[in-house]
Amino acid sequence: MDLEKIIYIGPFIHCKSLSELDICPNGAIGVDEYGKIAFISRDHKDDQLSEEGEWKKAKLIKTPENGFFFPGFIDTHIHASQYPNAGIFGKSTLLDWLNTYTFPLEASFHDLPKASRIYNRVVARTLSHGTTTACYFATNHVPATNLLADICLARGQRAFVGRVCMDRMSPDYYRDASVAAAIAATRQCIDHIRRIDPHSSLITPVITPRFAPSCTREVLLHLGALHRETHLPIQTHVSENASEIQLVAQLFPESPTYTHVYDAAGLLTPHTILAHAVHLTPAERALIGSRRAKISHCPASNTAITSGTAKVRTLLNEGLTVGLGTDVSGGHTPSILAECREALFVSRHVAMTEGDAAKLAPEEALFLATRGGAAVVGLEGRIGGFEVGMEWDAQMVSLGADVGEGEGEGTLEQGLVEVFGGESWEERVHKWVYTGDDRNTVAVWVRGRLVHARAGWKS
Amino acid sequence: MDLEKIIYIGPFIHCKSLSELDICPNGAIGVDEYGKIAFISRDHKDDQLSEEGEWKKAKLIKTPENGFFFPGFIDTHIHASQYPNAGIFGKSTLLDWLNTYTFPLEASFHDLPKASRIYNRVVARTLSHGTTTACYFATNHVPATNLLADICLARGQRAFVGRVCMDRMSPDYYRDASVAAAIAATRQCIDHIRRIDPHSSLITPVITPRFAPSCTREVLLHLGALHRETHLPIQTHVSENASEIQLVAQLFPESPTYTHVYDAAGLLTPHTILAHAVHLTPAERALIGSRRAKISHCPASNTAITSGTAKVRTLLNEGLTVGLGTDVSGGHTPSILAECREALFVSRHVAMTEGDAAKLAPEEALFLATRGGAAVVGLEGRIGGFEVGMEWDAQMVSLGADVGEGEGEGTLEQGLVEVFGGESWEERVHKWVYTGDDRNTVAVWVRGRLVHARAGWKS
Repeated sequence: MDLEKIIYIGPFIHCKSLSELDICPNGAIGVDEYGKIAFISRDHKDDQLSEEGEWKKAKLIKTPENGFFFPGFIDTHIHASQYPNAGIFGKSTLLDWLNTYTFPLEASFHDLPKASRIYNRVVARTLSHGTTTACYFATNHVPATNLLADICLARGQRAFVGRVCMDRMSPDYYRDASVAAAIAATRQCIDHIRRIDPHSSLITPVITPRFAPSCTREVLLHLGALHRETHLPIQTHVSENASEIQLVAQLFPESPTYTHVYDAAGLLTPHTILAHAVHLTPAERALIGSRRAKISHCPASNTAITSGTAKVRTLLNEGLTVGLGTDVSGGHTPSILAECREALFVSRHVAMTEGDAAKLAPEEALFLATRGGAAVVGLEGRIGGFEVGMEWDAQMVSLGADVGEGEGEGTLEQGLVEVFGGESWEERVHKWVYTGDDRNTVAVWVRGRLVHARAGWKS
Repeated sequence: MDLEKIIYIGPFIHCKSLSELDICPNGAIGVDEYGKIAFISRDHKDDQLSEEGEWKKAKLIKTPENGFFFPGFIDTHIHASQYPNAGIFGKSTLLDWLNTYTFPLEASFHDLPKASRIYNRVVARTLSHGTTTACYFATNHVPATNLLADICLARGQRAFVGRVCMDRMSPDYYRDASVAAAIAATRQCIDHIRRIDPHSSLITPVITPRFAPSCTREVLLHLGALHRETHLPIQTHVSENASEIQLVAQLFPESPTYTHVYDAAGLLTPHTILAHAVHLTPAERALIGSRRAKISHCPASNTAITSGTAKVRTLLNEGLTVGLGTDVSGGHTPSILAECREALFVSRHVAMTEGDAAKLAPEEALFLATRGGAAVVGLEGRIGGFEVGMEWDAQMVSLGADVGEGEGEGTLEQGLVEVFGGESWEERVHKWVYTGDDRNTVAVWVRGRLVHARAGWKS
């Protein structure tokens, strides 16, 4: 690594526990040449800096008014290839949505210039929303999937990149020709990523059976074997929609539940990310818990394509590990901040029938977006919070200057969050969650490297 | 009026019916010195302009790439005074939310400089979101309410401005001292607005009992009499939350339902706007229909403070008139575009239990936001669509340039909507609804006057 030492000065905020923020109004965080947090001062005074020896010549980056450092977001489920369809679903639900909108688009990724244009955009855009780590579903094309890994590496986004395996029930024009072909292609992508990033410093291959209906038992078993061989993580979908669950029951009559299909194939492991988990039975939740598999909650998608409401409070109470996923383009937004809002709102819809305990607080949504996501991707020791030894995956948030007297128009362009002065730090964070967007994410770092900055921002 | 003739050239889109957009890709709309639409050409060619006589010297305003003209939005329910609290609710529900967050803030509007700062901001901000008409709840202070009317007039926003009447069940420090005082103060605000805008060209006073629990039967009766005397519109809340409905039943034991409370006071009329209407009984819906009263649907608020899900499809099927309201700060956003999304999402939550017919389409949400809102405020002949003789309350929307090859970063700042090329007009509109924000609203006009433009836009 060839970074300069930097001291980040200003308020920093991260999650102490599921329900509690750690808010430090006068912080200083030193990040070393390897992008790791070397020290954290909770009571920073400018005149202390000269005393800190080897940090004397470090570059200083300070927050603007109403600014703070926050851990980068972790998107635990996003279909990079579906990005051009974000916002297009008509009134469809999952299975017709796949056939109408999704498969035709994904199939077109044999066209590499097209893939390049879309993947460059989705990586640039998710970075601009503060997403420092993303778990991507690509398509079943090897060259395009490898290109996505290249783009993430070049742009500096931490990513899990998965070539999608699917050997049945998708259209003829977009399907793995055989089990052998599916596994061989998956290995090609793994090999490529191992070559460009041998130590998974940023990019990790992820075994990606699309979902049970698209996969024969045989391909699932082979992917399970591949996991045992490589110890690579796994990502797929589970229990998203009623018709899908019914379909799985028909296709796997020997399996007691949807979740058991993956378990029987050796795909339900501590390194497995299960997207959606909307309609899990108690038996499935117990099985997931006993296997220590992880859950990606995708509230925007579950609402937009009318899949249902995931019972996040129940999942958390039962000790399951949960992160947030945008599920573009089942979800309309590539922003995890927007997804936090959707998680709050879905939890309120659950509360309308199951009682107030179901409601999530903004602090809890932010936990899912950072610490929760880090645990989902198995990186809870390296990212998701600010601790000495962890890597600097962070965003600098600015809520803009206080609303001024009288006119009030000059500052409209700085973003939608309105600070009138007198708000507590907790209230400012709530305003960010409910009314903020990418305009408030002024700069983004991954492993200490600046990977995005708003036009006009200077460090 | 002292406007110049302008011809707006480019695609225009507005609502033909609840479910259908009228999309005209090559339009030209001439707007006269009075801000009225003088002609609409559906097949515009640049060389035609010279033939159009008195319009020869008109100024021309053209849409940018992926741009179109769209009617201004109508926010049929927004508490201007609560704007500083947008995004702050904790886990509260209606009645505790009022006491914890709302009443203390509203009570502070005896402070005119504070009121000026907040009201200037909320009017500037709603205009920037394309809201050309707003139905405002102010507070119970006469000077601050009059100031809000002044600000709307000066900034050129069409507005219904209501001084809030409440003579019980709010804190001692924020309550009308008597029925006589409430009515006298209301008259003072009406008189002021009549003075500054005698023909209600932009600003109309609106009789505003806060909601039944805050009003004695006596004050409601007096406000009903005031309506019969002045023919002014009325706005209030109805059936938002279960505890509130229970409270109304206790306070008005003689009334068969919540809605009947207003009817008995002469407040349920064709000029009445009822916000929320979440838990209406069939009898209440029938009563509202027979009185031709109107409904403001506030989905963001209903979700955020866990009030419930309004059954919009049922309301529409029964022939009721429905518009959208942001209900700031029960709702977190002052954007009607965001509210369209919330309406789509709430309708999907309704569909999860009541079936697919409940789902709204983006076209339907846009209808509620424009034509529906216009009918709610009784201005369906003047605003809400583009027709000869109607007034030019409009926004110019730009979805930004097509996403380019390779890099893709230069254009991130133009907004979040991504056009990759090849999208149909319908799909572009859907992308706007699902992923757009104020950045896509480049310029806004009310009655032909430019009232907002994004920094950098030049006509």
